[in-house]
Amino acid sequence: MTTESVALPLRLSADRARIDAELDALFAHRDMPAERLEAAMRHAVTGGKRLRPVLVYGAGRALGASDDDLDVAALAVELIHAYSLVHDDLPAMDDDDLRRGRPTVHRAFDEATAILAGDALQALAFELLADAARPRLAAMIRTLAQAAGRDGMVAGQALDIDAVGEASDVETLATVHRYKTGALIRAAVRLGALTAVDESDPRMAALDAYAAAIGLAFQIHDDVLDVTGDTFTLGKTSGADAAHDKPTYPALLGLDGARARARELLDEALAALAPLGEAGVPLAELAKYMIERDY
Amino acid sequence: MTTESVALPLRLSADRARIDAELDALFAHRDMPAERLEAAMRHAVTGGKRLRPVLVYGAGRALGASDDDLDVAALAVELIHAYSLVHDDLPAMDDDDLRRGRPTVHRAFDEATAILAGDALQALAFELLADAARPRLAAMIRTLAQAAGRDGMVAGQALDIDAVGEASDVETLATVHRYKTGALIRAAVRLGALTAVDESDPRMAALDAYAAAIGLAFQIHDDVLDVTGDTFTLGKTSGADAAHDKPTYPALLGLDGARARARELLDEALAALAPLGEAGVPLAELAKYMIERDY
Repeated sequence: MTTESVALPLRLSADRARIDAELDALFAHRDMPAERLEAAMRHAVTGGKRLRPVLVYGAGRALGASDDDLDVAALAVELIHAYSLVHDDLPAMDDDDLRRGRPTVHRAFDEATAILAGDALQALAFELLADAARPRLAAMIRTLAQAAGRDGMVAGQALDIDAVGEASDVETLATVHRYKTGALIRAAVRLGALTAVDESDPRMAALDAYAAAIGLAFQIHDDVLDVTGDTFTLGKTSGADAAHDKPTYPALLGLDGARARARELLDEALAALAPLGEAGVPLAELAKYMIERDY
Repeated sequence: MTTESVALPLRLSADRARIDAELDALFAHRDMPAERLEAAMRHAVTGGKRLRPVLVYGAGRALGASDDDLDVAALAVELIHAYSLVHDDLPAMDDDDLRRGRPTVHRAFDEATAILAGDALQALAFELLADAARPRLAAMIRTLAQAAGRDGMVAGQALDIDAVGEASDVETLATVHRYKTGALIRAAVRLGALTAVDESDPRMAALDAYAAAIGLAFQIHDDVLDVTGDTFTLGKTSGADAAHDKPTYPALLGLDGARARARELLDEALAALAPLGEAGVPLAELAKYMIERDY
């Protein structure tokens, strides 16, 4: 366990450096028809925990994919995530001024540019996948598009907006989160896996159960941090959920109840990894990290 | 010529009925996680001239593709077009109240729902292409994503916003239009063609030259209609370009000059079709229609 604990922070920081370099490369040495748009896109992908790319790398490596082959899936998922944050932060949505310790895109640029930057980031995610033309391209595009769209992330955001100021229960909240953040986290794990193996590989189901559990645990932990964290450490405005009158796990279960539920889900995630044996250890460490992080 | 002139309106109305039915099917018999979002998406794809699907069918048929095989490309292009209209109409962008004779999505629903409906329509376009899993899927996804994104339509919209109130010249305006509307019109023709043949087929270049010429001619004619048309016939607010202080072809060349330029481009488009012989006749008729329509 000692080597594992040392290994995780090193691996996380190596993966983050890797995806940062890949993202930088997307904006280097190219003709830019619309420079301000590009600057806004770049602003949108700067910073962040890079958890989704880390999950792509983790899941793919567990099934034998190379880092080079995994880059494109990691990029595509992070671009979709970045676009969703830009649009969620807009005045018509959550109206947030701060993201990742910096002004949100519509504050640093303007609202129209933020809408367009998000739109272009989404298109770029699919363009990159198509450029790489992996053997399982159709399954990868389908996975990402479904997770991003009306049966995934966008549906979750729509449900989240509808839920503002409404009485909620734990089941309804779990449904919102399954769409809003869970779908893309599952897609990250699945895209990593699809880089290595076919959809029919029996380990796909194990990884999906893992991803579903950590997806919800991650969101519960996020709700907890919104209460217990401070704006400086979080890099976004703390207490925003309560200010927006959003239903949250701490509000429904109390802080201790929410933490206990996250723990249970962590245990589910770890149990799901059993079929992977030793190969699953890095993913297990990552799951623990995801609900122990303080930002 | 008489049979052709009779054939065109019939074919246009058959193609429109076909794509309308395909679009309807996207919203029928399915579980909808977020009903209001779905209703907004449906509102966004209702009505319209369906020129891009018509171009997909026309280009694909000219190279021997079946209508059944062309449906998915026609749908994907129309979804991207519909999403772009929803976002362009937003208060932070063109702030339009009327589209296709009905309230714009943010007027019929709300701004947040309009942003999300556009986002979900974009994802759905790529999902449909992936579901159909055509032999040239990578080329098709790449074509659509590039045309939609930072090197295509979104760049055009960003440039268009930057151009508001600025002095412009014909060359700058052509650049904006090449991105803003030209890119997706070229993609429509290309996707139709890719449904039938490989990228290396020599007729691809002929069709692309055709598409580039009609794309610009179409936009010039749109500028002309904005001056000469009335709101009822157009189904959108006439005179909006002048009201928004946007550079247009009639403003730079005069109405007659703009019409003459559209004619020149039509001749270029017709000349480009020569390598297709008889198979190009329906596309030639379509090009004429595109710059003679009154809405």
